[in-house]
Amino acid sequence: MTKKASSSYSLAELASLLNATLAGDGECRVSGLSTLTEAGPNDIAFLANKAYAKYLATTQAAAVLLHPDYVDECPVSALVLDNPYLGYARLSHCFDPLRRDDAVTMIHASAVVHESAVLGERVFIGPHAVIEAGVQLGNGVHIGANCFVGADSALGDKSYLHAGVVIYHGVVIGERAILHSGAVIGGDGFGFAHDGQGWHKIAQLGGVVLGNDVEVGSCTSIDRGALGDTVIGHDVKIDSQVQIAHNVHIGDHSALAGCVGVAGSTRVGQHCLLGGGVGLAGHIDIADRVQVTGMSLVTNSITDAGVYSSGTGSMPNAQWRRNAVRFKQLDELSRRVRALERSQN
Amino acid sequence: MTKKASSSYSLAELASLLNATLAGDGECRVSGLSTLTEAGPNDIAFLANKAYAKYLATTQAAAVLLHPDYVDECPVSALVLDNPYLGYARLSHCFDPLRRDDAVTMIHASAVVHESAVLGERVFIGPHAVIEAGVQLGNGVHIGANCFVGADSALGDKSYLHAGVVIYHGVVIGERAILHSGAVIGGDGFGFAHDGQGWHKIAQLGGVVLGNDVEVGSCTSIDRGALGDTVIGHDVKIDSQVQIAHNVHIGDHSALAGCVGVAGSTRVGQHCLLGGGVGLAGHIDIADRVQVTGMSLVTNSITDAGVYSSGTGSMPNAQWRRNAVRFKQLDELSRRVRALERSQN
Amino acid sequence: MTKKASSSYSLAELASLLNATLAGDGECRVSGLSTLTEAGPNDIAFLANKAYAKYLATTQAAAVLLHPDYVDECPVSALVLDNPYLGYARLSHCFDPLRRDDAVTMIHASAVVHESAVLGERVFIGPHAVIEAGVQLGNGVHIGANCFVGADSALGDKSYLHAGVVIYHGVVIGERAILHSGAVIGGDGFGFAHDGQGWHKIAQLGGVVLGNDVEVGSCTSIDRGALGDTVIGHDVKIDSQVQIAHNVHIGDHSALAGCVGVAGSTRVGQHCLLGGGVGLAGHIDIADRVQVTGMSLVTNSITDAGVYSSGTGSMPNAQWRRNAVRFKQLDELSRRVRALERSQN
Repeated sequence: MTKKASSSYSLAELASLLNATLAGDGECRVSGLSTLTEAGPNDIAFLANKAYAKYLATTQAAAVLLHPDYVDECPVSALVLDNPYLGYARLSHCFDPLRRDDAVTMIHASAVVHESAVLGERVFIGPHAVIEAGVQLGNGVHIGANCFVGADSALGDKSYLHAGVVIYHGVVIGERAILHSGAVIGGDGFGFAHDGQGWHKIAQLGGVVLGNDVEVGSCTSIDRGALGDTVIGHDVKIDSQVQIAHNVHIGDHSALAGCVGVAGSTRVGQHCLLGGGVGLAGHIDIADRVQVTGMSLVTNSITDAGVYSSGTGSMPNAQWRRNAVRFKQLDELSRRVRALERSQN
Repeated sequence: MTKKASSSYSLAELASLLNATLAGDGECRVSGLSTLTEAGPNDIAFLANKAYAKYLATTQAAAVLLHPDYVDECPVSALVLDNPYLGYARLSHCFDPLRRDDAVTMIHASAVVHESAVLGERVFIGPHAVIEAGVQLGNGVHIGANCFVGADSALGDKSYLHAGVVIYHGVVIGERAILHSGAVIGGDGFGFAHDGQGWHKIAQLGGVVLGNDVEVGSCTSIDRGALGDTVIGHDVKIDSQVQIAHNVHIGDHSALAGCVGVAGSTRVGQHCLLGGGVGLAGHIDIADRVQVTGMSLVTNSITDAGVYSSGTGSMPNAQWRRNAVRFKQLDELSRRVRALERSQN
Repeated sequence: MTKKASSSYSLAELASLLNATLAGDGECRVSGLSTLTEAGPNDIAFLANKAYAKYLATTQAAAVLLHPDYVDECPVSALVLDNPYLGYARLSHCFDPLRRDDAVTMIHASAVVHESAVLGERVFIGPHAVIEAGVQLGNGVHIGANCFVGADSALGDKSYLHAGVVIYHGVVIGERAILHSGAVIGGDGFGFAHDGQGWHKIAQLGGVVLGNDVEVGSCTSIDRGALGDTVIGHDVKIDSQVQIAHNVHIGDHSALAGCVGVAGSTRVGQHCLLGGGVGLAGHIDIADRVQVTGMSLVTNSITDAGVYSSGTGSMPNAQWRRNAVRFKQLDELSRRVRALERSQN
């Protein structure tokens, strides 16, 4: 990691960066980003959720990023824009100590880069990284320490691999991808034929294709396809500890929270949101703009946009035990109610 | 990775390899394997599921692997055998660019191999791999880049570690094992004694034993035993993101899908199938040939073969909310029905 | 790994180590630790669970660690103490082949340690490990092979990283931490702002702080905070395959079993126990001494100590299907029962 030379900015600079209206002293400089309650006199804060508006009056921040509705209440300088949360997102990168725009190519002496690999400009390859034959790295690609990139894989411009990422052979990753440590892209899908006695492995001959602007969390695995590819669309955001099985397709702009598992050949539409721990069975189709709440299991295709859930709420164990026992008798209970209804008529 | 010198085969070659009956031109050569719909004139395809039989008539494949029932309908050359899916599995390896039979021992200069390690013939040790004291590697073992094999561990002939696998000390792995990147074998089991205030670690003194023909998916962890070993039988197939706790025993030929978790000291029989995300509580026994459907939780031993499930189906969230609330009152509802029944008599 | 010079102890030594009362021959030496049933004449065994008391009479162990209640029944030498399980925990470390007290600093020639890193005494840094600028390693810290420690991170005295652990920049880890292979500490939290069309990454500017005596299992990920830190208290034990999201706080002495997922900004109290596969929704508070049973989902704050559960028990699939269908009609069923009750009065 290399530190930014400076991370102090004038409010005028930030206003123009965010295309925000400045209400206050443009010369005032800030060197940190924080919340309304924790910000100090050198920090800029933000108000993106009305639940926190009550903290605006007493904030110690030098300036606050906020919506026009709150500018009058703001006791300090303000950067005013319609989507303060988006503004916060953009602003956050100004204070990120990880610089992702190295000026020149730097390949650590201990890295092992095959002579046939094709490197763009301003590529960083960290200590002990291994780049196999035929790999293509675009401009500004960052390969962290101890990463492995298998033969004939390709990473688009400005893709960033943190330390210890593994990319198998024949994987294609788009531009501006961010892959976190422990992520494994292109391991074999889980495919076996049974001969009546035991298993015979099916070689996984497909690859994995990640679109542009994909982020993959720590310790997440995306398996290669059996014949065709596993495909992750553009702007798909995948959290940590997620498992994507072979030949899955995830549509553009979808987001998968931690511990999600998607079984083989399932297709997820665009703009879908899968909550933490959600499981999707194999060979099903999920429509665009479907949201599945945390730890739900979906075993059939979903054809309409909307929010879907499964499971039971949590409750004290003693209460749960009584109800869970009744669940096992639920069909019988239903029949008894039907009998009572019949007996009335 | 090293590419196969050639991956073009004559149908006669493949027929003899698969012990299949050839109907068509034995001289015809194929260089790829694909599906009926995606295959081109240089590919061989397969028909292993009657749902796809409709695509047989229009396939562009040079040849099709199929069951005798379909040979008359096949518009192109056919390789005929009773289990086409098994044939596909065998055939797939002909087209795998990863060659797993290196002719000579190759140890990368950057690998750190302890002088006391015992290496068989035709061993491959990749860049930055670390092999500790007393390790034994059988013939044809492949240790990928950045792998770690701890002291006194042993890998059987033709075992294959992809890049970045970690094997702790004192682990025994059988022949032809395939371990995918990010897999960790032999980390400490989760064992602590409580003294009323806090936790005291219990050193995990057991090991891990994997049988022959075991496959372990990406980012899967198998913990070492507390005293005895954690034991994975022969031909057990474990998918990605699976957690096997200390002293678990998994019977031969069982298959565990992604995100499964098996708690400590549980024993799973032979030929079991655990669906994705299944959880098995600790200290229970699962009989042979038990199948558990996805994301089910099993908290008691299962003594009979069969299919088991838990949970609720998924549904639109609004519907689910109403039903989930009622679940919390299910015991009361049941009592009310009983009261109604009593009042009738 | 380095083997202990000797792992043979006299019963007198062990009695004094455990502050136990010796009943038998203090000169007798033992070289192993095992269970009552598996122990041989050179082993010491333990009786910590009355269910195993029946094996005491026939044990082949040289000595048994047990509670005063059982000393009369013990056919061999005994080490007598009130908490034999705690005694077993302490004793176990005598037989651990991994020595964690290297006498001198050892840095492997292949390790890449930045000149600005500050190392304590008796530090071990294994092959191919990477230590970035500004890192501080306390006395007796062990950095396994292929580990990565990012810029400005700090590890307390006697912290132990097994092979292949990744610590991002700006992470603070206390004393005596144990991190298992594949663990990733400090990856980005899952934070994005939506602009109506797609996602904009929010730089994760916070860090991760682990207290003293924390253990983290294999392939577990703990994400860095968005602005403030993700905080893991003292003596917190985290199993394998766990996901801790950004800005989560876990209270002292809590234990999280395998495959647990804790969503962003949730606070877990002290002395909590989360069973395997438990999911906690984001932005909720869990009181001290709360226990959640395996694979339960908690979506609301829990204010009272106690045991909580969700889900349904598992059952044969045919039975489950009938009941699961009825679950979808549960609200309607409840209304029908109410109607029957009304019609009675």
